[in-house]
Amino acid sequence: MNDLAISLDVHSTTPLYEQIYNYIKNEIQSGGLPCKERLPSSRKLSDYLQVSRTTVNMAYDQLVSEGYIESVPHRGYFVCDLEGLVHIKPSAAPMLQKDRRDTPAFIYDFSPHGVDLNSFPHNAWRKLSKNLLMEEDHYLFRLGDPQGEPELRSTIAGYLHQARGVNASPERIVVGAGNDFLLLLLCSMFGGGMKIAMESPTYRKAYDLFHNLSNDVRIVKMDESGMRVDQLAATDAQIAYVMPSHQYPLGTVMPVKRRMQLLQWAAASNDADGEERYIIEDDYDSEFRYKGKPIPALQGYDHDDRVIYIGTFSKSIAPSIRVSYMVLPERLMGLYKSRGQNISSTVSRVDQMLIAGFLNEGYYERHLNKMRAVYRSRHDALLAELKAFRKICRVRGENAGVHLLLTFTNDMTEEEAIRRAAAQGVRVYELSTYFVGINQAQKETLPSDQSVDGTEKYLCTDGRCEQPTDMKQPAQQTVLLGYANLSEQEIQEACSRLRKAWLT
Amino acid sequence: MNDLAISLDVHSTTPLYEQIYNYIKNEIQSGGLPCKERLPSSRKLSDYLQVSRTTVNMAYDQLVSEGYIESVPHRGYFVCDLEGLVHIKPSAAPMLQKDRRDTPAFIYDFSPHGVDLNSFPHNAWRKLSKNLLMEEDHYLFRLGDPQGEPELRSTIAGYLHQARGVNASPERIVVGAGNDFLLLLLCSMFGGGMKIAMESPTYRKAYDLFHNLSNDVRIVKMDESGMRVDQLAATDAQIAYVMPSHQYPLGTVMPVKRRMQLLQWAAASNDADGEERYIIEDDYDSEFRYKGKPIPALQGYDHDDRVIYIGTFSKSIAPSIRVSYMVLPERLMGLYKSRGQNISSTVSRVDQMLIAGFLNEGYYERHLNKMRAVYRSRHDALLAELKAFRKICRVRGENAGVHLLLTFTNDMTEEEAIRRAAAQGVRVYELSTYFVGINQAQKETLPSDQSVDGTEKYLCTDGRCEQPTDMKQPAQQTVLLGYANLSEQEIQEACSRLRKAWLT
Repeated sequence: MNDLAISLDVHSTTPLYEQIYNYIKNEIQSGGLPCKERLPSSRKLSDYLQVSRTTVNMAYDQLVSEGYIESVPHRGYFVCDLEGLVHIKPSAAPMLQKDRRDTPAFIYDFSPHGVDLNSFPHNAWRKLSKNLLMEEDHYLFRLGDPQGEPELRSTIAGYLHQARGVNASPERIVVGAGNDFLLLLLCSMFGGGMKIAMESPTYRKAYDLFHNLSNDVRIVKMDESGMRVDQLAATDAQIAYVMPSHQYPLGTVMPVKRRMQLLQWAAASNDADGEERYIIEDDYDSEFRYKGKPIPALQGYDHDDRVIYIGTFSKSIAPSIRVSYMVLPERLMGLYKSRGQNISSTVSRVDQMLIAGFLNEGYYERHLNKMRAVYRSRHDALLAELKAFRKICRVRGENAGVHLLLTFTNDMTEEEAIRRAAAQGVRVYELSTYFVGINQAQKETLPSDQSVDGTEKYLCTDGRCEQPTDMKQPAQQTVLLGYANLSEQEIQEACSRLRKAWLT
Repeated sequence: MNDLAISLDVHSTTPLYEQIYNYIKNEIQSGGLPCKERLPSSRKLSDYLQVSRTTVNMAYDQLVSEGYIESVPHRGYFVCDLEGLVHIKPSAAPMLQKDRRDTPAFIYDFSPHGVDLNSFPHNAWRKLSKNLLMEEDHYLFRLGDPQGEPELRSTIAGYLHQARGVNASPERIVVGAGNDFLLLLLCSMFGGGMKIAMESPTYRKAYDLFHNLSNDVRIVKMDESGMRVDQLAATDAQIAYVMPSHQYPLGTVMPVKRRMQLLQWAAASNDADGEERYIIEDDYDSEFRYKGKPIPALQGYDHDDRVIYIGTFSKSIAPSIRVSYMVLPERLMGLYKSRGQNISSTVSRVDQMLIAGFLNEGYYERHLNKMRAVYRSRHDALLAELKAFRKICRVRGENAGVHLLLTFTNDMTEEEAIRRAAAQGVRVYELSTYFVGINQAQKETLPSDQSVDGTEKYLCTDGRCEQPTDMKQPAQQTVLLGYANLSEQEIQEACSRLRKAWLT
């Protein structure tokens, strides 16, 4: 017993058996108890330590199950050959320190990517999470369906039908960890070398992703109704990537007439080689619309089975919730089964069932309505504040989403506006980063928004600039102001600083 | 008050304020309370319902925050215009029914993809999850670092250094939702059109993924040490995809000499165009090795910064845990930052912090050692049972992983073996599905395993078949037996059925 100088702390919160287990494990790891050494019998050790034999047996059982010692019948317990046993020293990495939380470098940040988390339903989330993990059941930890849990897909189908007019059966829904992943999955299904039409400016990550995966991106001009279908038809594109509910970053809402033209384009096949055409409808933030009834998704009007619909919970619940979904047209299900389904699900079953519960138990409905009310107030507050700038800029992108665009009509450039705002501690965002394509001239395709002041002095409707030698194009005079993360009061304070920055 | 025929149930578990809220909300949704209708004051309603004013105010506040009613100063509460409000009817989808859990179609299933979940540390997982969600903090729900949480990356770096000899700094680690996703991400970084060398048979999903994304896969022959580097060098491949710790599905462990040859190949650049070469080391199940010390990862020997190391928690914790990681060579960090980092993280922050806690608080160490002991017993039990078949087959793939391979030396084909086993209620798996490449002749590259019986009657060392007209190649006579999901007793019972199937 000399080797086992265990001193037990009866007042510790660590159970006695665990103290014995820890002591012996450390002795074995450090070499204090060498390989093949015989341990005292549980009776002897329990006498020596003045604890019950059950306590010692529990410690020994744990050590046996982890491979530190082995039980030889009629002879006792022996230290195992430790080769191959894992011993992980606690990492020096700091755990969740308070100070590493995102601290803003600015006093007010009009980030267009914001999501208000003060309204995050912590209690509901905790309750659902706890209930799920209560079940001592392996079900949740087995590998799930690569397409997503059937429960979640049914729930999403029901939601999309009611809220977005999307015609979706659970069999055609694919759940994935974020819109970026779903676009990667689509690329993998189609293979590289697709000809994809995009607007410019657009969702930059989608452009980068298509471009990186060897697809040919065709930039198609936009007007105030969105992607110009006559221009699209003039390209050899097979796939059109659009955001009809609320184009990012311009905020354009595609009217029904243009939607119909787009669907007609897709229903026809390419003349040259009869290739099938598709539309990717990225419906990333359609939940937030503050005026009138939300326009149903493009997918709901599609009678030719051509629309790939993508939506996400990252914008409507929380950015760290990595759950998105797409609805595939029936005609692509064969391709998905042969070339997409081989990629394992990217969302854990626990997270999928959590989201399904969140929707089915009514939390999502409440949350969406609450968030819409919150964002609407902020939208209204910002619009009211921006009236002060009406002589130097025009506003667009109202009534939906969580950001507005400001285009300066004096000679202030985007860069100067951002610099002056920063000097006042306010961060606003440049539109330039959303322009894609190699040709700088594509920046000229920014459509004017007639709803604001009717002037079109910067652009012809065909997208060419009237003053081609003038470098002060609207694209370089527009900033984005996101309001999701600022309270009404913060918006007022920030705008008061912007007045100092831009009006004096 | 006639319109508000609320009957409250004081014995209900639903709080009174919530009963009032639900009643009014339903009335508004059904049209019973029309738009612009004025609601009774909170004082009147509280008198009428015999509840406190606070209770009524709580219900009204909730309705205001969700946009159902609005408060007009000095006038009272009015029903809002409901256009645009979301109303989600509960889905008809059945929630987590007991009967939809995976029920085996066979009595015993030797699945090679199994993970034993009886040992899943439910309590630890629940405790960590609960503690994480306790903090009423937005931190966990903000969008995280696309590369993964710094805490988790530090923890993984420490673990990989100790357990696998991997030379990893947190700055070079990328966390993603599964190995398949990480391979997609690599493809996106490299763009399509890479020339990738693979073995055959191999991890089929990786092949499909590379192939689907327009890469050119070069099949390179294997011998008993793994991928043949002389054959690799004869191709124009830029990237070699290997599993040196435990090749899937053959179970080959690449000896140190071959590893060095492979690293030398990578350190040299392609003659033709000076392209850089890389090795993808998929270390998917290196945690499970039952004899001798685990061989450190190939990455640990790499002094030329050429190895992309990939590992996962899906095999070592649970399949539904979609957390994998890769360690990029320093020279690829620029490419990652420009072409990979734009893809948002695919793992939620909650899950990442859960895994970090699981490692840092010692649970992972315990769990791995426990699982290794569990799998070792099953491995030993299966090997002992398979002695009964020594006259009709040889065994390989011992001492690591969670499956064995049986190659029949009589005239039984893979197909026949599977059919006969199925007739006895036992599921075994075919090797054929892991062969990749267009050319059927590539099935001939299956190396013999001299460690079992020394015969090489089926194959020359160069991988060509000696009997090219003989269709009974070893590839069609080999089955896989996974033992992760079967207890020792189940293994004995299943093997007794296999004896009936194959020996009589």
